[in-house]
Amino acid sequence: MKRRDFLKAGATGTAAVAASTLAAPAIAQDVRQWRMVTAWPKNLPGPGVAAQMLADRITALSSGKIEVKLFAAGEIVPGNGVFDAVGQGTAELYHAVPAYWGSKSKGILLFGSQPFGLTAPEQAGWLIHGGGQSLYDEIYARFNLKPFLCGNSGPQWAGWFRTEINSVDDLKGLKFRSTGLASEMCSKMGMAVQAMSGPAMFQALQSGALDAGEFIGPWTDSALGYYQIAKNYYWPGVGEPSSAEECAVNLDAYNELPDDLKEAVARACASLYNDVLTEYNTKHAQALTQLVNDHGVMVRKLPDEVIVAMGNAAGEVIADLRASDDELVVRITESFLNYRNLMRDYMPYADNGQMNARVMDYSYD
Amino acid sequence: MKRRDFLKAGATGTAAVAASTLAAPAIAQDVRQWRMVTAWPKNLPGPGVAAQMLADRITALSSGKIEVKLFAAGEIVPGNGVFDAVGQGTAELYHAVPAYWGSKSKGILLFGSQPFGLTAPEQAGWLIHGGGQSLYDEIYARFNLKPFLCGNSGPQWAGWFRTEINSVDDLKGLKFRSTGLASEMCSKMGMAVQAMSGPAMFQALQSGALDAGEFIGPWTDSALGYYQIAKNYYWPGVGEPSSAEECAVNLDAYNELPDDLKEAVARACASLYNDVLTEYNTKHAQALTQLVNDHGVMVRKLPDEVIVAMGNAAGEVIADLRASDDELVVRITESFLNYRNLMRDYMPYADNGQMNARVMDYSYD
Repeated sequence: MKRRDFLKAGATGTAAVAASTLAAPAIAQDVRQWRMVTAWPKNLPGPGVAAQMLADRITALSSGKIEVKLFAAGEIVPGNGVFDAVGQGTAELYHAVPAYWGSKSKGILLFGSQPFGLTAPEQAGWLIHGGGQSLYDEIYARFNLKPFLCGNSGPQWAGWFRTEINSVDDLKGLKFRSTGLASEMCSKMGMAVQAMSGPAMFQALQSGALDAGEFIGPWTDSALGYYQIAKNYYWPGVGEPSSAEECAVNLDAYNELPDDLKEAVARACASLYNDVLTEYNTKHAQALTQLVNDHGVMVRKLPDEVIVAMGNAAGEVIADLRASDDELVVRITESFLNYRNLMRDYMPYADNGQMNARVMDYSYD
Repeated sequence: MKRRDFLKAGATGTAAVAASTLAAPAIAQDVRQWRMVTAWPKNLPGPGVAAQMLADRITALSSGKIEVKLFAAGEIVPGNGVFDAVGQGTAELYHAVPAYWGSKSKGILLFGSQPFGLTAPEQAGWLIHGGGQSLYDEIYARFNLKPFLCGNSGPQWAGWFRTEINSVDDLKGLKFRSTGLASEMCSKMGMAVQAMSGPAMFQALQSGALDAGEFIGPWTDSALGYYQIAKNYYWPGVGEPSSAEECAVNLDAYNELPDDLKEAVARACASLYNDVLTEYNTKHAQALTQLVNDHGVMVRKLPDEVIVAMGNAAGEVIADLRASDDELVVRITESFLNYRNLMRDYMPYADNGQMNARVMDYSYD
């Protein structure tokens, strides 16, 4: 990390250095000290590591003019308090996931993940070319925040089940761990949904407080040991076809930045998106082989009947959002739906068609 | 090449200001004037626009310390001469596609596109988490270049055909436009492959010099008018499941950069990848509807028999690369294959599984 600490005074302040006599504007050396609060333990594999990479990247791309120091959950504020803390200026930016802020507005959840919704590249596409970013800006501005997507954990799995799922009825009353809009979809399926952390899910599966649950995917789930208790690992996790990570900056702190530093923050976030996404995809793929070969996990596909019923339940979740009395939530939902339907109808000819063709070809082996 | 033009004045230069008496090293104001040559007409929709965005982004992320000026194909060197020109230092960087440099080494083609290979996100994943970037660096270093991926046009379509394709035999002897490794796959299928530009393909279809041809996808292809002549538009374009765009920097110019400017170049490229990819996906999707509704285009799927035969032909293309007498080409091919097979086996549970489930759900409409 580069530190241009000319005449810096004080740990938290911004040290602006007197310009030379020659040409003040070109060499102004204000160094901003920014605190990044996060929803994660320090260096938690996945998001904790990504948060540190983002902090370092903003510092580097700003040539040290923004020095970002990372604080783990609990160091300044608890993990679930970062949204408020940054909006209020207790810290300058945070790294978390939109999925955590449904209590602020359900419209925010759509920027994280939508049942039967957008894959990770499509989610980026909605924001960049489908009008999503301006709506994301608009709803976060209510909370004095400027948001950016900066990662994605990709498609989730449907979860870990003790017993096989052969019909919609098998899900009724099932005590199941899920989150966000996916959990609303599961509730509409008649499942008894509970929210809890990943480690708590292990305990709850062990004690019988849960029958089943979903967390993320093979890499992350392996580390938490669910396979020790529930051997049936179901796909596809249609509740979360992708799940975005975000960075949000205090809006006042963002607005006072010169253009080049605004660019540094925006591009640091954008450049991290594929680093994060492809780490998940790569490590999930490697971990799945180990789960099957070393731990006797049974990989199973949800029956089509269940997928169709979940699709109908997801449609109800989206209908609820379209009926919101907050007109901004309605606009976000309509914008998402337009882009989602465009991609649903196009991708069978594109990425999806390619991947379906690729599994027909084993001549490379 | 490197220009540390202190106190330079004049219309094209940036006035760099001598450092103050306070702290010279940290505020050195070298401004590098970099020429970006490209393989494109200025502001050509797609890659020409992307090249300009990249030039602007490097300038912004370097806080103006690298001023990138773009030159269209033919202004300094012809489009197909940018690789040599930048390696030799005639210009500092270029924007083009790896697919153009098969005459330098066939191994380079794998960084652009592979038949039955990687989708655009997977291609980024191979470079970032599958060992691809260090091999990409290694082979370009032979030509005094430092390469970065900076965009992707996503999956291609199989092409425009005057008549329906019902069997492998229907392809034999067909005069067909294609490029890169995809054209080698087509040759092994018995097709009479020709390379030519997109506009030339229109003329050749019109005159009968070509029976059929593939270019990119609905957005780009609409502009070139192929639908006026050949109404059958086939998918999936298994010859190119994605097609990367690249930026390469003269290696000497890159190596002398301080770390923060190396970071600026790298992150400018990485941040552009999804901007470019999702523009193609979005505009392809919109254009397809117009092709079908307004121009009577018939969207058709290649028969499974043809896809399987193409897969076998693709396997032969890859086998040729594995048998290269250049050990670096062999290592690149093995690295690609490892990552490709990992993704082929994992994606059915992930993005592919999600997209297959999504088309079962029309409850959102």
